[in-house]
Amino acid sequence: MLETLFAPRGIAVIGASRDETKLGYGVARNLVNSGYRGAVHFINPHADQILGLRCYPSIEAAPDPIDLVVVIVPAALVPQTIEACGQRGIRWAIIVSGGFRETDRAGADLERQIVAIARRYGLRLIGPNCIGLIDTHLPFNTTFIKSVPHPGEIAFVSQSGAICQAVIDWGTGMGFGFSRIASLGNQADLSEAEVITALAADPHTRVITMYLEGVKDGAQFKQAVSAAARDKSIVALKVGRTAAGKRAVSSHTGALAGQETAYDVVFDRYGILRANTTEELFDWARALAWCPPLMGDRVAVLTNAGGPGILAVDAIEANGLRLATLSIETIAALKEFLLPHASFHNPIDMLASAGPREYAAALRVLLNDARVDAVLVICVPPPIEDLTPVAQAIAAVGLGAMKPVVVAVMGEATVRDALKALRAVRLTDYRFPERAASALGALWRHVQWLARPSEEPVVFEDVDRKAASASLRGAFPSECEASPWDEAISFEWITGTQATRILEAYGIEGTREALVRTADEAAQWAEEFGYPVVLKIASPDIPHKSDIGGVALDLREAEALRLAFERIMAKARAAMPEARLDGATIQPMLRDGQEVIIGAVRDEQFGPLIMFGAGGVDVEGQRDVAFGLAPLTRLEAERMIEATFAGRRLCGLRGSPPVDREAVIDRVLRVAQFAVEFPQVAEVEINPLRVLESGATAIDVRIRVISDE
Amino acid sequence: MLETLFAPRGIAVIGASRDETKLGYGVARNLVNSGYRGAVHFINPHADQILGLRCYPSIEAAPDPIDLVVVIVPAALVPQTIEACGQRGIRWAIIVSGGFRETDRAGADLERQIVAIARRYGLRLIGPNCIGLIDTHLPFNTTFIKSVPHPGEIAFVSQSGAICQAVIDWGTGMGFGFSRIASLGNQADLSEAEVITALAADPHTRVITMYLEGVKDGAQFKQAVSAAARDKSIVALKVGRTAAGKRAVSSHTGALAGQETAYDVVFDRYGILRANTTEELFDWARALAWCPPLMGDRVAVLTNAGGPGILAVDAIEANGLRLATLSIETIAALKEFLLPHASFHNPIDMLASAGPREYAAALRVLLNDARVDAVLVICVPPPIEDLTPVAQAIAAVGLGAMKPVVVAVMGEATVRDALKALRAVRLTDYRFPERAASALGALWRHVQWLARPSEEPVVFEDVDRKAASASLRGAFPSECEASPWDEAISFEWITGTQATRILEAYGIEGTREALVRTADEAAQWAEEFGYPVVLKIASPDIPHKSDIGGVALDLREAEALRLAFERIMAKARAAMPEARLDGATIQPMLRDGQEVIIGAVRDEQFGPLIMFGAGGVDVEGQRDVAFGLAPLTRLEAERMIEATFAGRRLCGLRGSPPVDREAVIDRVLRVAQFAVEFPQVAEVEINPLRVLESGATAIDVRIRVISDE
Repeated sequence: MLETLFAPRGIAVIGASRDETKLGYGVARNLVNSGYRGAVHFINPHADQILGLRCYPSIEAAPDPIDLVVVIVPAALVPQTIEACGQRGIRWAIIVSGGFRETDRAGADLERQIVAIARRYGLRLIGPNCIGLIDTHLPFNTTFIKSVPHPGEIAFVSQSGAICQAVIDWGTGMGFGFSRIASLGNQADLSEAEVITALAADPHTRVITMYLEGVKDGAQFKQAVSAAARDKSIVALKVGRTAAGKRAVSSHTGALAGQETAYDVVFDRYGILRANTTEELFDWARALAWCPPLMGDRVAVLTNAGGPGILAVDAIEANGLRLATLSIETIAALKEFLLPHASFHNPIDMLASAGPREYAAALRVLLNDARVDAVLVICVPPPIEDLTPVAQAIAAVGLGAMKPVVVAVMGEATVRDALKALRAVRLTDYRFPERAASALGALWRHVQWLARPSEEPVVFEDVDRKAASASLRGAFPSECEASPWDEAISFEWITGTQATRILEAYGIEGTREALVRTADEAAQWAEEFGYPVVLKIASPDIPHKSDIGGVALDLREAEALRLAFERIMAKARAAMPEARLDGATIQPMLRDGQEVIIGAVRDEQFGPLIMFGAGGVDVEGQRDVAFGLAPLTRLEAERMIEATFAGRRLCGLRGSPPVDREAVIDRVLRVAQFAVEFPQVAEVEINPLRVLESGATAIDVRIRVISDE
Repeated sequence: MLETLFAPRGIAVIGASRDETKLGYGVARNLVNSGYRGAVHFINPHADQILGLRCYPSIEAAPDPIDLVVVIVPAALVPQTIEACGQRGIRWAIIVSGGFRETDRAGADLERQIVAIARRYGLRLIGPNCIGLIDTHLPFNTTFIKSVPHPGEIAFVSQSGAICQAVIDWGTGMGFGFSRIASLGNQADLSEAEVITALAADPHTRVITMYLEGVKDGAQFKQAVSAAARDKSIVALKVGRTAAGKRAVSSHTGALAGQETAYDVVFDRYGILRANTTEELFDWARALAWCPPLMGDRVAVLTNAGGPGILAVDAIEANGLRLATLSIETIAALKEFLLPHASFHNPIDMLASAGPREYAAALRVLLNDARVDAVLVICVPPPIEDLTPVAQAIAAVGLGAMKPVVVAVMGEATVRDALKALRAVRLTDYRFPERAASALGALWRHVQWLARPSEEPVVFEDVDRKAASASLRGAFPSECEASPWDEAISFEWITGTQATRILEAYGIEGTREALVRTADEAAQWAEEFGYPVVLKIASPDIPHKSDIGGVALDLREAEALRLAFERIMAKARAAMPEARLDGATIQPMLRDGQEVIIGAVRDEQFGPLIMFGAGGVDVEGQRDVAFGLAPLTRLEAERMIEATFAGRRLCGLRGSPPVDREAVIDRVLRVAQFAVEFPQVAEVEINPLRVLESGATAIDVRIRVISDE
């Protein structure tokens, strides 16, 4: 159904104007000038003709077929306009008008009203408060903006119309065009996910670029990009990092998993390259659109000066690529026509005298070397000759290349003709080697993502869902604590033995432990199960036990144990006189192995984020953690583990023997499965999981359920 | 003396040419066109006139005064040319010719030869293999490059001539100029440090920018930038990160202190902003050159569209700045002339209809708000009106502003006239808000550096230099190990009691310890000094004791101690059968407190780098370390400590009590002083230093002396 949005048989502009200072004029002008081949109808009760086309007093009066209307009337008139369009059987309406949710509460009401009307008729809305759509290949252009994009292979989806305007003008100046542009505005109805799906079906689009302030529906978004990423490259600029609302969390996992982390893991999962700046977004997109596939990470640098070559080398390594080692044949071939004092090892410095002949021949030789995957060409304007013939020579060779060639043309005032020559054959140009290398880095990350083996998420069948479910229902949250960010929110945590049992139903072995009410009881337990032991204060009112000295480690005999029991009770009474004290939890002290943390926190949009990393009390301080998106495949769990120092050292470090990495992978996958299968769980945290030479024990487990209120 | 380099009374070009395809023509042309007001003489035995000026057959024949010659003759003729210049009493020679050290060994010999000749006459050389000097204010231009820079306030020093060429052309296209440009080439004689000194004295230069591949003499460089940074802003692009030769090191400190770390700490000490890319170098330099001083970190964003405002907010926070909170008066004033649906809280979104009047008035209001330190103005080309009047309005207000105003003009194809209007009044423009915010960030970091209190480095007088010196001389290196990077290099480490005693002479308390040869001796020592204890294998051949299981911790009674002794001896024998085993070192086991590392490593160029951070066996894994440059002030030591998590948690963390931070500062300063006062010390490492509630004990000390060979 979305296909018809980009293939309307007829378009009507409601609110078209003859007045050149009005947006309704701009839309009419662009639509007429765009070369759209369907019927165009202008609706304006006060005009007979606009731009030589007949005007109709109302949408009812305009002839069939009309698939799409562009609405530019005052906000108050939009509801009746949509009503009329609905009755007329129109399927798509772009609402350019502002004055809705972006302004005030009355506007938000109005927005809900037009959505309700549209729904009644099965009419889909784009906007309001947007600048509409452009397709340079169909072609059509429903926007009012003066700059018109050149046809190209890059699609751009934006939640900001102004950014559309800016990048069209910037793209025109930088010599690249667009296939489609979609300004989404308030997204009252049509979402970015639906547009992505439409772009994925567009044969003219090679790269989908996005300006995102957020997503409308996480699940829909994941589905859309998952399907789109098979055929298109996707690059996103996700903004609003600082504006992002803070989540109500109180675990280590929650504190470290900001909303931006959720975007990072989703983008990583679906192969969306995350650009840091607007320029990076299109630096990468141009290369993705124009370059042939990159098959490896070995880059040759071809330059006419040494300094820029060094810049390139730094940037290549900073972007995760390598300098190619040239074959002997390549070096011999280069020696045939370059000056003897040229540098024949990568970077290949042809010296300042290099002209068109040298550039063309050297580029050809490098492209023929099987050890070279891409070439970064640098041109400093030569002191005597003109740069344009050099660019033309590069263009001639680059045109047919089966490997990426990116060009750093190092200048501005005198390089315009050179740039034109390169752009004419779709060679990507940058002013400096750093940005050219950054573009190659994006190609390489995209290729690596494409090469990831596809796997199914792991689902263990040995889990006892019923037992876990019953335990979850039966558990009493033992801790209520205020959110560190919003005191009105309080958390309900299931901890201690109750929490441990729940995860045990999912095959996550917990520690043996008991609640002891007196020093005698403690000593008796230790007598039975053995020393050394750990004591922890047990209180529904004390969330962070170590903070108040409520933990005693490594108690080796009865006297020390008794003393410790009295001490932690006294400390707890002193620190929090109001707290209810149930006694203490006693556990065996496990001294060997390594402490890690495994956590899960449910992102509102994207579902459970899973965390793995260095455990202990200073998780936030160490920040040695990695995130994944549940459900997890085995490879994803392994990648999370390898991404942290805590994970890499599972295999042994300086005298500490290797521990059971396989058990860690297992626990990470089980926590992910648990989080997926119990949507009422908001957070899970095992800290620490003590990983032994064989096996791993969850020492401390906390589970937070979403409260019913 | 350097002043005369930039104020020559007469200039001769040796090798000037009439042939437009020769560099000697380019130099002659540029020098004539530059507007240089002194005498210009061309030397060419085969020409009578060049560009209408008389030619002399030799430098001897040209009339006085000649202070500077530009030499563009084949390399082989350079020695005799320099000889002739020396005899003629000329003081400065720019050697443009290539064919010296950059080509081969014969070239290097030739280079040494010309330096020797020049030294004999007190003639100073610039280059060889450079493109010379430009001063746009004097003016003169000795280069051959076609692009001529506009006059400006930015000086550029470069070890690459091609980069000079590129940035001149880029600067011209981007609308900024230069005060002086100095291409240094091979730096056979004149160094970047001397040029920096000359630039510091130039009243037309506000910002010194540099392209550095390295420095010629670290001490001279530090002195030059230290003097220059008082009056000028300095920004450097240091390249060759990956090419940097690896240091011969084997400590944690050495492994973490790469050569780039040395540049980072030197740049930080002397207020040099380190740019990551060429564009960043000049993005920052333009703002530093043109903006009035930034007095705080509160930025107001003025925009005509929401999306770009969000981009700006993200970038402002990413660059260490804050969004200003506007005063009530400011908001009231804005409400008087902006549309009611505009956003009056920072970012101020005036909506798409904002024209010149709104931009000017709003900018004026924001600049008048005492809570605003700088304004980032965003202009998206308006849909109907022209952008140029908007830019002119911004320029009119920005011209007299006492606070920085940076402008993001979001477009390219249609914005040229707008940019011209801004540049005419020296308002810095960027295409996108991200780069504008990055420039404000640079201003802010520079201001913060200027505000650092100036302090003398700490020198403790209670140190016993004689004892330390005697101990150093008398110590036998106990370990010889191969460099991990170069097996031909072996290190000599002083360890154990010997090393501990050396630092004790500098007031760094070590642990009580002894060498024990048998399990009996160990038990006897523990009997005397108390349990628990630690045993470590003692062998000159085993550098990393834990790697082979040669350490036993927390031994609490005689039987465990005896067992441990036998076990570590057995493990050492098994792991390294060839190693000489002296027995074991026994120490008290200190369980409380926190383990940190303090290290020093001597950088060839810049002297001792001091490291502080999280101690233990996985220092490289944790990478929680910070560096400083000795000698250290107290504030610098504190800044290092605060820069690490290990340092911040000295004040207490979740139940662990605060430990003696003051003792850590003391030890860091003492290690720095020791490294400064003993130049024969290549590396020092205390790992761990155990920091207690009161005091700190150096548990394990290693010192490496530079061997005499």
